[in-house]
Amino acid sequence: MRILVSNDDGISAPGLWALAGQLMQAGEVVVAAPDREQSATGTAVTLRQPLRVQKATPLIEGVKAFSVEGTPCDSVILALEKLIEEPVDLVVSGINQGLNLGDDMLISGTVGAAIQGYMRGLPAIAVSIPAGYNDWRDAARLAKLLAEEIKAKKLPQDIFLNVNLPELPVSEIKGIRITQPAHKTHIDSVDEGYDGRRKYYWLVRKKLNNNSAEDTDMWALEHGFISITALQTTLFRKPIAGIDEGCCKRLFQNFKQA
Amino acid sequence: MRILVSNDDGISAPGLWALAGQLMQAGEVVVAAPDREQSATGTAVTLRQPLRVQKATPLIEGVKAFSVEGTPCDSVILALEKLIEEPVDLVVSGINQGLNLGDDMLISGTVGAAIQGYMRGLPAIAVSIPAGYNDWRDAARLAKLLAEEIKAKKLPQDIFLNVNLPELPVSEIKGIRITQPAHKTHIDSVDEGYDGRRKYYWLVRKKLNNNSAEDTDMWALEHGFISITALQTTLFRKPIAGIDEGCCKRLFQNFKQA
Amino acid sequence: MRILVSNDDGISAPGLWALAGQLMQAGEVVVAAPDREQSATGTAVTLRQPLRVQKATPLIEGVKAFSVEGTPCDSVILALEKLIEEPVDLVVSGINQGLNLGDDMLISGTVGAAIQGYMRGLPAIAVSIPAGYNDWRDAARLAKLLAEEIKAKKLPQDIFLNVNLPELPVSEIKGIRITQPAHKTHIDSVDEGYDGRRKYYWLVRKKLNNNSAEDTDMWALEHGFISITALQTTLFRKPIAGIDEGCCKRLFQNFKQA
Amino acid sequence: MRILVSNDDGISAPGLWALAGQLMQAGEVVVAAPDREQSATGTAVTLRQPLRVQKATPLIEGVKAFSVEGTPCDSVILALEKLIEEPVDLVVSGINQGLNLGDDMLISGTVGAAIQGYMRGLPAIAVSIPAGYNDWRDAARLAKLLAEEIKAKKLPQDIFLNVNLPELPVSEIKGIRITQPAHKTHIDSVDEGYDGRRKYYWLVRKKLNNNSAEDTDMWALEHGFISITALQTTLFRKPIAGIDEGCCKRLFQNFKQA
Repeated sequence: MRILVSNDDGISAPGLWALAGQLMQAGEVVVAAPDREQSATGTAVTLRQPLRVQKATPLIEGVKAFSVEGTPCDSVILALEKLIEEPVDLVVSGINQGLNLGDDMLISGTVGAAIQGYMRGLPAIAVSIPAGYNDWRDAARLAKLLAEEIKAKKLPQDIFLNVNLPELPVSEIKGIRITQPAHKTHIDSVDEGYDGRRKYYWLVRKKLNNNSAEDTDMWALEHGFISITALQTTLFRKPIAGIDEGCCKRLFQNFKQA
Repeated sequence: MRILVSNDDGISAPGLWALAGQLMQAGEVVVAAPDREQSATGTAVTLRQPLRVQKATPLIEGVKAFSVEGTPCDSVILALEKLIEEPVDLVVSGINQGLNLGDDMLISGTVGAAIQGYMRGLPAIAVSIPAGYNDWRDAARLAKLLAEEIKAKKLPQDIFLNVNLPELPVSEIKGIRITQPAHKTHIDSVDEGYDGRRKYYWLVRKKLNNNSAEDTDMWALEHGFISITALQTTLFRKPIAGIDEGCCKRLFQNFKQA
Repeated sequence: MRILVSNDDGISAPGLWALAGQLMQAGEVVVAAPDREQSATGTAVTLRQPLRVQKATPLIEGVKAFSVEGTPCDSVILALEKLIEEPVDLVVSGINQGLNLGDDMLISGTVGAAIQGYMRGLPAIAVSIPAGYNDWRDAARLAKLLAEEIKAKKLPQDIFLNVNLPELPVSEIKGIRITQPAHKTHIDSVDEGYDGRRKYYWLVRKKLNNNSAEDTDMWALEHGFISITALQTTLFRKPIAGIDEGCCKRLFQNFKQA
Repeated sequence: MRILVSNDDGISAPGLWALAGQLMQAGEVVVAAPDREQSATGTAVTLRQPLRVQKATPLIEGVKAFSVEGTPCDSVILALEKLIEEPVDLVVSGINQGLNLGDDMLISGTVGAAIQGYMRGLPAIAVSIPAGYNDWRDAARLAKLLAEEIKAKKLPQDIFLNVNLPELPVSEIKGIRITQPAHKTHIDSVDEGYDGRRKYYWLVRKKLNNNSAEDTDMWALEHGFISITALQTTLFRKPIAGIDEGCCKRLFQNFKQA
């Protein structure tokens, strides 16, 4: 099993190498990650500029590593389309320092990297732990278990999993829950500053203490569980009342009249 | 009705101003858009750096315009959270030069801008026409019709619509279809180059001539229809076989043993 | 006379257009400037990435304008090597908001733009006024006078002038002085901040109240004069004691022994 | 002796570590360099955005290393003003892959880094070898010799040296020459390309085969010598005919009349 490992905290992030280290027990690991932190770059892909890639010195021996001057998505696309010649069987992204829950996921570079694997038909896993929590070992170990289950076909092959772990020692974690994303997990606020010459703004995300429903990722994390959410790569919303054939006819009639 | 207009082609793009011009007939228009092209920045939000904003000279009189050194998402977040003091009723993004269909949508900055409006509880519309098609008028007019219908509550308020128009004069457009996103619309390939000193890579997206099903956005566009797709802001995939309580128990048992 | 006008405050800066407006009285004006602020980019040239250029809407009718996604140096190089087909006779950069005095000049994008003109054999002028001073008219008028003198060959053709004006009405300006750069005009200090996730540093330049000698640009500005400093495009320092043939022989002998 | 080592090829460049390795024999070495290649960024300083710094894994044990998301100048300023608490005695920049000769020097990030050391009163050395030449050892050894001479006060303390070595084994190098910068060493040309959507330009520097005078850096390199050029940090040009008191009076009179 060949596993591509990426992240959005950059190729020097300890979480990336903790992950790579564990996954080596499940298969051959190749790392392709941004050369510097790319948090919140979400699904961004670099199309207007060329990309530079360097062979990086791996922090773990035996791992081939590429450092990409680009986003997490760029790293995965380049790795799968160009840098790795042999077929890849799994993409794992993380371990992100900072939970990726609810709506938040959409702007996560960690999830973005996994999206690009899944879009290419590969199973994909994004793994995150709380910001400030410096113990990646359990998260890396869980990722390895998931990789092994995929390899052994105990898990379906067509999966894109968003995995979040609480800041707890294993003995205190209550279990694993299959969840759906909570709706609103953060609120954006905008700080203003002055650099001595001009005003600037700075986006700041503040965590919401919301009362998420019991089936959500947020609830799971707040109650000591590991959360696994199955994702897809479409924003498609099932047919909704009022957006139907009737509205099409009405709109088109008006549109033609102009 | 107050309408925020943004895009990913940048504040000088003619498509933006064609849109703003039409929407002025439906309400008060405020423009907040990236200062330079930000195509394919998708859902990216700038959290690690401050953002600079300038009052921009509007290309249409009477429109307040903000030029943001950031992504489309940054522009909409800043506008809604800080720059516009009065309540906004609708976010319209476009008119993008380049269709945003199928999976592609996820990396679209045009769609990304709309996401940030919809996440804040506002109706949101992303509008695109084919790359190279320089007639924005019909697309802008359709956006105005949609805005008027939202204002008149003929359309549901809780909507996030991805609208794509074909490169055809109105008289040849066959109608409007409510669609779902086609699966694969593009294939990435990677060009290699040399800048006189070092090698570089360049991501290139090539359009697929796929045989999309008749209910897809891609089919609609290829057959002369306007496509409207209803979106949501979650990648959540409905429960799938094998990702269930059983797998949770199994995984957790193994996880605890380490 | 064809005059290329650039700056480092970006193509929307009012100082640029005040300058262009006045210079139109001396010749044909073409504007090529960065699309966004590029202060302190000094001599930086973009070699590792391609450059994007847009025809910009000029704020003054009759002026051809190019907006460059790059540095001031990039803008001038592109304009002179590619964008302007006819020969250019003069490069004027500014009007910068922020004096460019002493050592400071080296990091100034305003001076950087002029360097690229002068390196190509053209007379070049950089013009600056104090930060926060919003009256560009007199500075623009002085630039026009200089352009006219160059055109009329009242001034030598082989010149690269760094011009700084004080924040004073014309009636209170005491005169114009030919100066040399003061040694130390600013001190860098480093602020520390925290973005909610990680520490950051921010370089801040603080003006020194130094006792500059009477022949310096700094002294001139502090005493109500306009300063004109003649520059060249080399950092070469005349032969200095101890860096001589003797040291060459000594070093080379040691070098060969290894 | 405490030596700050920086470069513009980025903290992973082998030339940087070859240099650091040799300089360890002359004193304590601290590395502060850009996290990615910053060629041709010249004197650029980042004032509009905060800077991120990471402790980097040194490629040579015992060396403290900082990776800076910024320019070479940023790296040196940050290191000297903030990151290094003890006094620094010397700044060495390189070993650059690509000669920095003549006018070219002004856009060199390698020289830019050294400028910021010299401006703070420290002896500063920039060292470069030809592009494509992968043997940094001799250049590093020469840098060590220079450092030792500075330490032993065999060389003056107030020096800023630009050192270039030819692509030759030591036995074939003819000697060391004190030179002045050749005038024109490169010519810029502009390539045009198309990214599938829009046109782009790419600046390309082409080496000139000029007939430089015998006292220049270019001549020295072309004839098998090592070149050492003494630099200063001002572009000031000695008084020139026509830029004098007479021109000041004339201009000021016209200026006042408006």
